[in-house]
Amino acid sequence: MMKICSCQFEVEAGQPAKNLEKILSFIKEAKKNNADIIIFPEMAVPGYFIGDTWDSSSFLRDCEYCGQKIIAAADGIAIIFGNVAVDWHKRNRDGRQRKYNALFVAQNKQLLSAENSVYPFAIKTLHPNYREFDDSRYFYSTAMLATELKKDVRELIKPFTLFIKGKPLVIGCILCEDGWNDDYPISPIDILCADKKTDIIFNISASPYTLGKNHKRHRVFSRHAQMNNVPLVYVNKVGIQNNGKTIYTFDGSSTVYAADGSIADYAMPYQETARYIEFPLKKEVAQNLASDIEKDDIACIYKALTYGIGKFLQKIHMKKVVIGISGGIDSAVAAALYSRIISPENILLVNMPSVYNSSTTKDLARELAENLGCAYAVVPIQESVDYTIRQFTETKIHHASSDIPEQLKITSFTAENIQARDRSARVLAGLAAAIGAGFTCNANKAETSVGYSTLYGDQSGFLAALADLWKYQIYGLALYLNKEIYKKDVIPQAVIDIVPSAELSADQNVDEGRGDPIKYPYHDYLFRSFVERWDKATPEDILLWYENGSLEEKLGCRPGLVKEYFTDPTDFINDLEHWWNLFSGMAVAKRIQAPPILAVSRRAYGFDQREAQNTPYYTRRYREVRQHFIGK
Amino acid sequence: MMKICSCQFEVEAGQPAKNLEKILSFIKEAKKNNADIIIFPEMAVPGYFIGDTWDSSSFLRDCEYCGQKIIAAADGIAIIFGNVAVDWHKRNRDGRQRKYNALFVAQNKQLLSAENSVYPFAIKTLHPNYREFDDSRYFYSTAMLATELKKDVRELIKPFTLFIKGKPLVIGCILCEDGWNDDYPISPIDILCADKKTDIIFNISASPYTLGKNHKRHRVFSRHAQMNNVPLVYVNKVGIQNNGKTIYTFDGSSTVYAADGSIADYAMPYQETARYIEFPLKKEVAQNLASDIEKDDIACIYKALTYGIGKFLQKIHMKKVVIGISGGIDSAVAAALYSRIISPENILLVNMPSVYNSSTTKDLARELAENLGCAYAVVPIQESVDYTIRQFTETKIHHASSDIPEQLKITSFTAENIQARDRSARVLAGLAAAIGAGFTCNANKAETSVGYSTLYGDQSGFLAALADLWKYQIYGLALYLNKEIYKKDVIPQAVIDIVPSAELSADQNVDEGRGDPIKYPYHDYLFRSFVERWDKATPEDILLWYENGSLEEKLGCRPGLVKEYFTDPTDFINDLEHWWNLFSGMAVAKRIQAPPILAVSRRAYGFDQREAQNTPYYTRRYREVRQHFIGK
Repeated sequence: MMKICSCQFEVEAGQPAKNLEKILSFIKEAKKNNADIIIFPEMAVPGYFIGDTWDSSSFLRDCEYCGQKIIAAADGIAIIFGNVAVDWHKRNRDGRQRKYNALFVAQNKQLLSAENSVYPFAIKTLHPNYREFDDSRYFYSTAMLATELKKDVRELIKPFTLFIKGKPLVIGCILCEDGWNDDYPISPIDILCADKKTDIIFNISASPYTLGKNHKRHRVFSRHAQMNNVPLVYVNKVGIQNNGKTIYTFDGSSTVYAADGSIADYAMPYQETARYIEFPLKKEVAQNLASDIEKDDIACIYKALTYGIGKFLQKIHMKKVVIGISGGIDSAVAAALYSRIISPENILLVNMPSVYNSSTTKDLARELAENLGCAYAVVPIQESVDYTIRQFTETKIHHASSDIPEQLKITSFTAENIQARDRSARVLAGLAAAIGAGFTCNANKAETSVGYSTLYGDQSGFLAALADLWKYQIYGLALYLNKEIYKKDVIPQAVIDIVPSAELSADQNVDEGRGDPIKYPYHDYLFRSFVERWDKATPEDILLWYENGSLEEKLGCRPGLVKEYFTDPTDFINDLEHWWNLFSGMAVAKRIQAPPILAVSRRAYGFDQREAQNTPYYTRRYREVRQHFIGK
Repeated sequence: MMKICSCQFEVEAGQPAKNLEKILSFIKEAKKNNADIIIFPEMAVPGYFIGDTWDSSSFLRDCEYCGQKIIAAADGIAIIFGNVAVDWHKRNRDGRQRKYNALFVAQNKQLLSAENSVYPFAIKTLHPNYREFDDSRYFYSTAMLATELKKDVRELIKPFTLFIKGKPLVIGCILCEDGWNDDYPISPIDILCADKKTDIIFNISASPYTLGKNHKRHRVFSRHAQMNNVPLVYVNKVGIQNNGKTIYTFDGSSTVYAADGSIADYAMPYQETARYIEFPLKKEVAQNLASDIEKDDIACIYKALTYGIGKFLQKIHMKKVVIGISGGIDSAVAAALYSRIISPENILLVNMPSVYNSSTTKDLARELAENLGCAYAVVPIQESVDYTIRQFTETKIHHASSDIPEQLKITSFTAENIQARDRSARVLAGLAAAIGAGFTCNANKAETSVGYSTLYGDQSGFLAALADLWKYQIYGLALYLNKEIYKKDVIPQAVIDIVPSAELSADQNVDEGRGDPIKYPYHDYLFRSFVERWDKATPEDILLWYENGSLEEKLGCRPGLVKEYFTDPTDFINDLEHWWNLFSGMAVAKRIQAPPILAVSRRAYGFDQREAQNTPYYTRRYREVRQHFIGK
């Protein structure tokens, strides 16, 4: 019998000393509990998303030093952990220090090597370079090393042999992507198990949460275990890490797959926990547990958001927040969500009416604040906006010309944006600074897609926690918060029922049922196809689907919707081009200056979906089909 | 004799149709001029920096279609061009469509293949994955293909054979990084020339401008030509491309290296031009030309900035700009620079004094505007700021607590930021909207390094054109503008002489010689070592250099400076930690929301220097040395 401690701990990115301290205390505890092996996630020492800090030798030396401390603790216990490994005598392909994303196995205060290995560690073989991952930017892979050594990569992927209670244990050690080999030319797990002598596979990971990813992992990893008839221990980290523009939660969900593919152990998502697993594995399986937890999308999203926001606030030492509440759904959801993360006493809700705000929404904002028990203030913006417009029109422009007139005129559109900036850059930013808080950005993903927001206005804030959620998910979250979390209507039903509106002009009068130009039941799905679809849709795809009648099915929106919304092809095409121009034009410029976005979907804006500020483009095929419909 | 047309043209990223049109017209002209071969840069059809647009099949099909049109034009002329190549039957390692960064050779309306090639195109072998480059995110390399085909990569790197006037011409075709092989396991040029039968090497590139890069290229490529005794034709594009946060200029500077390593032809930087080069190469060399042009750093920077800003304005269809001018150096340089790019009549300079602004700087601002002949306005902010502070203090907070008091107090620091946001988010953004302009961000690289700016305040704007320049470069540019460009002091000498100051409080009174807390002659170089140094410096490096007396030499700043500025180690360490905490802390948060930055250095902020918003870190070694100096 053997006892393995799987250590799903909160790795703090860029903090080797802190992580080392934690690792050592987990080791101490595991020794007390007579574990034979303790295992830590990928990059447990430095963290994973640390940007170009990988370019600092002094940082790398510090990570090495921490690694030595861990090895020195491998006394009476075998330790498996992830860290960066540096070969100071070689270079990466960018000419910088040679670095490996590595897995170390230590026993008797020494590092073990796999058979014939050139290094006393295992190297990550498959390098993800998509979404938030940039492994090839920083690390040398096993395949690159094989090329350099003029060897077959298979020769470099060998198991380690530990001695547990005097008996050999052959362990196959891989890192994260190595287990997701579907589209790579080799399968490290299959290579490690080829001679049937491997007793167990360890996969140490740094795998950020994505809605639905755990289901896929269960399928893929169960199959690996089953096909090779070997148990597979998957250890993931918890915590949050970011690449600047996008923040990821790491959900842990560390899992032990038995040799028959069943789930033998499962660590609760987002919990820092050391699980002790006895081998051979007991018969009872934890299959149901895992699937129960990941059943409901909105519940998963709620968990990811509350965890992610909470950790981010901690990280930046922010104890108070200011939230502008309009009486609309997005800000109401933000307020209800934050109120579950920090005490309502530390939340200041602010309603900032102008002449265009209805008493309907003003009353709803107050009702929301009362329901949540947050601090609340009303800060009207009309005087300030009027002052600005008056000051502008009274300003004398010297050396004026036909391009820049001596006296300025303020259009209603300009006035709308003045309002939006007055609210955020003047009121919210000022109030936040006055009480030592941050103010939130409440934008959803549909608005963020097309830049339906004002720069330095409602697009600003310290964090855009809802910007990876489509409007339908915001509504889902509102209902979930009321029903499952608060168990009462803290978000007034009228907030959910009212037409979404920015209330920046008379054209957006909610009492007359007028609001946003975004038709969410359709545009949520249209925009989603631009960014989240595996093969990203462009107007060409959309128009071809429209032509052949498969559009609603392809987008996943409600059948019949397109006909309801658009009277004819011209109408449809105008709408499509209007939003595509914004999505791939001005909205990119706005996203470049957007706050960091908390990721939950399979493609979040920021540095997950990578974008250039280019001119909107229409393919030849699109232009042909368009012409067929409506001529030039 | 043979005539080659090297086509250094402006590729617009993400606009295949537009690029195709240009390519076809260059081909037409080259045919008229009896060129035997015409050659276009890397990714001449789609452009290079297009973000995740590579994930759209419909976009890829459009690029393929454009490629076919180019092939069809290869009639009486051989055409070499860069485009994306798609293998619709295979997948990339991320599971998406197989894509290659490819070079096509067309003759007689058909694509040629290299010997034994599996595809009718050459594939980029060496993939850059550093700075702004993400080739492995999107493209499959020759090395990956070799692994898949279980072949040696060398077997896949073979020359093409063209027939020019009935005679065979063996051409080695490579893409960009393939010529920069120093840190890669193979050298494509050496492989192509191994059997001494290759007549000429073509390197098609998409190589962004970096200060000093051309000198290095001349060294590296001259050596390649010389070592292999073969002429090398390097064709680069012009134009600008961006990855969202960072904008790059492509300077062209296409060069022909003779077999003896000398420069035989050189295309003017930043010019769209088709050069006709006759082979065998004439004896006169253009060596001096190339080195003359790249002699003076500030002249190069001036060229890159004016080109980059001009093209960016064109791209986003912006004809007018608003520039806030304080009477200080950064905004003065911005105003003088923009005035060379667009007509002064389309530039509105705005001075926005508060009670803290001296008449010295107010007068200098007016003088600058008069010198440049721009439209000019004075928009005082005191009333508006006072209104905001009064409104805040009069606002009643309901449901107040010990954390959020019933009545707010506005500290002087909060008031400073209120001023900064009032200027940018209220006045500049509003005025810009009113006249259909954008407003500029005038931040320099030192300020950007440590976030010495206000979010939604002076850090905002549509473009941060100076944010890759250290303060000493800003001064250099001011002198260059006066002396070389305007040939008079359009930037008043007093603007250059005055102490740099934000003038946001009485503590920053310029007339009393008080200003920014940044000591530019030292901090410029300290901050540069954090970001631009090959091996990025951390406080550990700085303190060790300080300890052993090599700091000024390592940083490149003026000797003796450290002693002048810092009375003792405690003073030095406090300063170091203060700025490091900002650089790796709050400043990252600010950069995440900063405008796009125009790159000139070897590491610009944005998506060149990649960063995560993590907690500032000090290594163990740093903490030890620090303790040695000043104890706990």
